[in-house]
Amino acid sequence: MKLLLVSNSTLHGQGYLDHCAAAMRAFLGPEVRRVLFVPYALADRDAYHAKAKTRFEALSLQLDSVHQASDPRAAAAEAQAFFVGGGNTFRLLAELRRQGLLSAIRDAVGAGTPYMGSSAGSNVACATIMTTNDMPIVDPGGFDALGLVPFQLNPHYLDPVPGSTHMGETREERLRQYHEVNCRPVVGLREGAWLRIEGGAVHLEGSSGARLFFPGKTPLETMPPSRLELPLG
Amino acid sequence: MKLLLVSNSTLHGQGYLDHCAAAMRAFLGPEVRRVLFVPYALADRDAYHAKAKTRFEALSLQLDSVHQASDPRAAAAEAQAFFVGGGNTFRLLAELRRQGLLSAIRDAVGAGTPYMGSSAGSNVACATIMTTNDMPIVDPGGFDALGLVPFQLNPHYLDPVPGSTHMGETREERLRQYHEVNCRPVVGLREGAWLRIEGGAVHLEGSSGARLFFPGKTPLETMPPSRLELPLG
Repeated sequence: MKLLLVSNSTLHGQGYLDHCAAAMRAFLGPEVRRVLFVPYALADRDAYHAKAKTRFEALSLQLDSVHQASDPRAAAAEAQAFFVGGGNTFRLLAELRRQGLLSAIRDAVGAGTPYMGSSAGSNVACATIMTTNDMPIVDPGGFDALGLVPFQLNPHYLDPVPGSTHMGETREERLRQYHEVNCRPVVGLREGAWLRIEGGAVHLEGSSGARLFFPGKTPLETMPPSRLELPLG
Repeated sequence: MKLLLVSNSTLHGQGYLDHCAAAMRAFLGPEVRRVLFVPYALADRDAYHAKAKTRFEALSLQLDSVHQASDPRAAAAEAQAFFVGGGNTFRLLAELRRQGLLSAIRDAVGAGTPYMGSSAGSNVACATIMTTNDMPIVDPGGFDALGLVPFQLNPHYLDPVPGSTHMGETREERLRQYHEVNCRPVVGLREGAWLRIEGGAVHLEGSSGARLFFPGKTPLETMPPSRLELPLG
């Protein structure tokens, strides 16, 4: 299985996917020339596809969008690679489920098709979307997702803001609540970081770190490049 | 119908419910002596009840908790008033549904029992929980909630942080996404504010304002005290 799970598509002050473009190109390898895009996390799929297509063409990659395929499941089965874009995780999961794409993508990735996701696209790679930051604007018909990895991701991981007077829960408090009722490890992936998963290992890469949460334990800080001790089986 | 829907239970620098305690006492009126507490938004129900009970006793109100009732539905039917505490909205809704309390509370409030909620407890008073800020740590078995009002609330409403380099969606962007697929008005209720709903009118009260979102329209700013032009029927 080959996965590249990016925290965020745009780093402050840079263009769309700029901070991870080289890593994406290297991850895919020279034999991949076409990527299948999944735009369902945003409302305007055509505009989203156009934006991503331009960015991928600069990497000499053709980007087809699954929303234009006459048979989305067949398109997934035949894809050379996937890129699942960010946006709203609930909307993305609802549409993947409605189209029968969860099993189609899961089967293809299990058979070796490389999977790249950003933000919501990284969330749906997990067993569930229970560690998303997004607003539940649509009912996804259950929180179970692709289940490509047995741990959870929290993209755009945010440290508490010093001196804040806002009384909403911090991100860490939210993840502690998750662990009150669930036991999967959670990788809090800061903006600028991504996980590259291949050869049975989880590599933390990018320009910022991750905070790892395990139920009942003190969180661990990790900086890239490093290998994370997380289960994959 | 009598509702007091508070944005947040604790204002920065103050104690639990201090900023809205006088409003709660006045809202209930002198004939109410006992309130039924719903602690399900937090994991430790006994501790949550103990904390809230102390605060209510300072208002000369007895606070029973529904989690200690031998028949929760009967307790709801007989309650003089409700207070639904904050925490995680998904966990709260899951338990209300599991206990059959959605219809019991809805019926009681429809018959005149005053309802007070804070944060998650205000979210579940709406038709759905789709405008919560919380992490979906448990599957609530559907997003439909008490439906006491036909509009949505976003508690702890937060303005964009000037100069922030974080690339996650702002609260306003999230609510705009909600309106891409839903049409209910949303009241973004800042910390310190609450809605008092009685006599067929929606009153904005407290120390801070609200931002009102309607699909396809520019948001409206409102400061308390004011009456909001929102449908109740």
